[in-house]
Amino acid sequence: MPSRLRIGRETFHYKWAKSHKPVLTIGDGDTVTFEINDVASWQLTEDSKSRDIDRLDASKLYPLAGPVFVEGARPGDALIVETVSVKTADFGWSAIMPGFGLLEEFKKPYLYKWRLKDKKFATFEKGIKIPIRPFCGVLGVAPPERGSFDVMPPGKHGGNLDIRHLTAGSRIKIPVWVDGALFSAGDVHAAMGDGEVCVCAIECAGEATLRFTLERNSSLRWPQYLTEGDAKPKRGYYVATGIAPDLMAATKESVRNMLDYLTKSYGLTREDAYVLCSVAADVRVHEVVDQPNWVVGTMISRDVFPE
Amino acid sequence: MPSRLRIGRETFHYKWAKSHKPVLTIGDGDTVTFEINDVASWQLTEDSKSRDIDRLDASKLYPLAGPVFVEGARPGDALIVETVSVKTADFGWSAIMPGFGLLEEFKKPYLYKWRLKDKKFATFEKGIKIPIRPFCGVLGVAPPERGSFDVMPPGKHGGNLDIRHLTAGSRIKIPVWVDGALFSAGDVHAAMGDGEVCVCAIECAGEATLRFTLERNSSLRWPQYLTEGDAKPKRGYYVATGIAPDLMAATKESVRNMLDYLTKSYGLTREDAYVLCSVAADVRVHEVVDQPNWVVGTMISRDVFPE
Repeated sequence: MPSRLRIGRETFHYKWAKSHKPVLTIGDGDTVTFEINDVASWQLTEDSKSRDIDRLDASKLYPLAGPVFVEGARPGDALIVETVSVKTADFGWSAIMPGFGLLEEFKKPYLYKWRLKDKKFATFEKGIKIPIRPFCGVLGVAPPERGSFDVMPPGKHGGNLDIRHLTAGSRIKIPVWVDGALFSAGDVHAAMGDGEVCVCAIECAGEATLRFTLERNSSLRWPQYLTEGDAKPKRGYYVATGIAPDLMAATKESVRNMLDYLTKSYGLTREDAYVLCSVAADVRVHEVVDQPNWVVGTMISRDVFPE
Repeated sequence: MPSRLRIGRETFHYKWAKSHKPVLTIGDGDTVTFEINDVASWQLTEDSKSRDIDRLDASKLYPLAGPVFVEGARPGDALIVETVSVKTADFGWSAIMPGFGLLEEFKKPYLYKWRLKDKKFATFEKGIKIPIRPFCGVLGVAPPERGSFDVMPPGKHGGNLDIRHLTAGSRIKIPVWVDGALFSAGDVHAAMGDGEVCVCAIECAGEATLRFTLERNSSLRWPQYLTEGDAKPKRGYYVATGIAPDLMAATKESVRNMLDYLTKSYGLTREDAYVLCSVAADVRVHEVVDQPNWVVGTMISRDVFPE
């Protein structure tokens, strides 16, 4: 019979490595609840200020819960991870971190703190309300190479995918690269937009309950997933385009145009507009074939704004 | 009182140019119905074959209905174009055109022909049904530069934006660059996915009714728009990721992985899978900040597949 198991928040690691000793062994079909520390390992609290961003100890970013050894998982299989539920702590934060994020013109650290006691909406500036849709930014397995690897870049092992659609009910398939898969989870996000443009979602601690099954001899090369998708907003989307011969340039231009719109229409500071895009606006590629210019759209649900 | 006007399908032009003589003069608030020829100017019909793609006369691509002179429109204003309705003809086509499209490995021309008599769904191979959501691929104004310009690349004048969200009820703001704006419309699409990856939507002739208003002294630099957004699919989305340090490479990888999935799971040929992605799958940027790897997802509604 499948077991329900738990990994406590005192158990975590900071790197991907196939040499990691598993903290739990499970079977095909088991469900595990992971207690997850926030991405900065509690270095940021309700008392923190923007200047504390510069003082973050980078070696304490991305504490991951795990690794879990899945009995029978072998290289060539796929691990299917169903997100059963994700709960958030009552405190969250979003930061602009110079040197990271999409837009290089943001050169000063900035910290925005969120109250997450209400589990449906997080209140932002100017009466803006962000719907809470929690998911794990990191869902991954050990890569096949020897050595230990930073959590930051996602890859064929999954990892720091930051896919906002991996909310409760979603199922992601990740290729298995080592015996037992060595799965870990981390980086709970209370809400995020496609793109995560300022480099942060609503970052928080939390708890994720995940169910694991195996697909034998999968030919999967990269993660694939199922998600229920977004509800249609009552008031539609506002969209700012960016058009350029380079997809990254078009993406930046599109986000900058959205920042222009948000600052002008809602009186947000440029920093707050950037954070709002990161937690609530979606970057979509409208066309990537009309040579030589590609069209990218940054879309925000108008339901987040006060009526 | 605002007028309701019409431009017949015998009136069209093939280039953007501020020297074009307008075919119609309208006022702020007027509504115009544009009869629109298909993007290949009737060179492809129900009798056409894949080999006819190579014989297309490129000088007859993108016939645009217009231009319309909007009285009072001046450089610095924005033209707001509301799509009131778009109707499709009963025949449509999608083509793979070597040298165009996202994926360079498609080296042979391929033509898929659609019946569009049913105005709700277009039937594809293997019982797949594509919901009809018509819009104009081209909505644009004359650019400020002297000379005449190809329709293909979109730009700050709008033009061949290929934004699938510009269906009935949407409103797009386009910067005005010349007196009277000189607006034209074209390229009716019965359905398209974000990305338009194979270079074609469901291409067809049709009729678009558009309403025009002016915003004075707008500081708009690029098109922005309002759209109602998609309904939530009943059976969710299937998503294939692509992960790479270059956004274009990640996009290509994501679409290739979706093609692997579609060919394997539904028995489609690779060509048909590519066409299906182009007309029904959306390219979204999941994260563009987890240095050095970006995650792109190609998402297809599972409602298109037979139950």
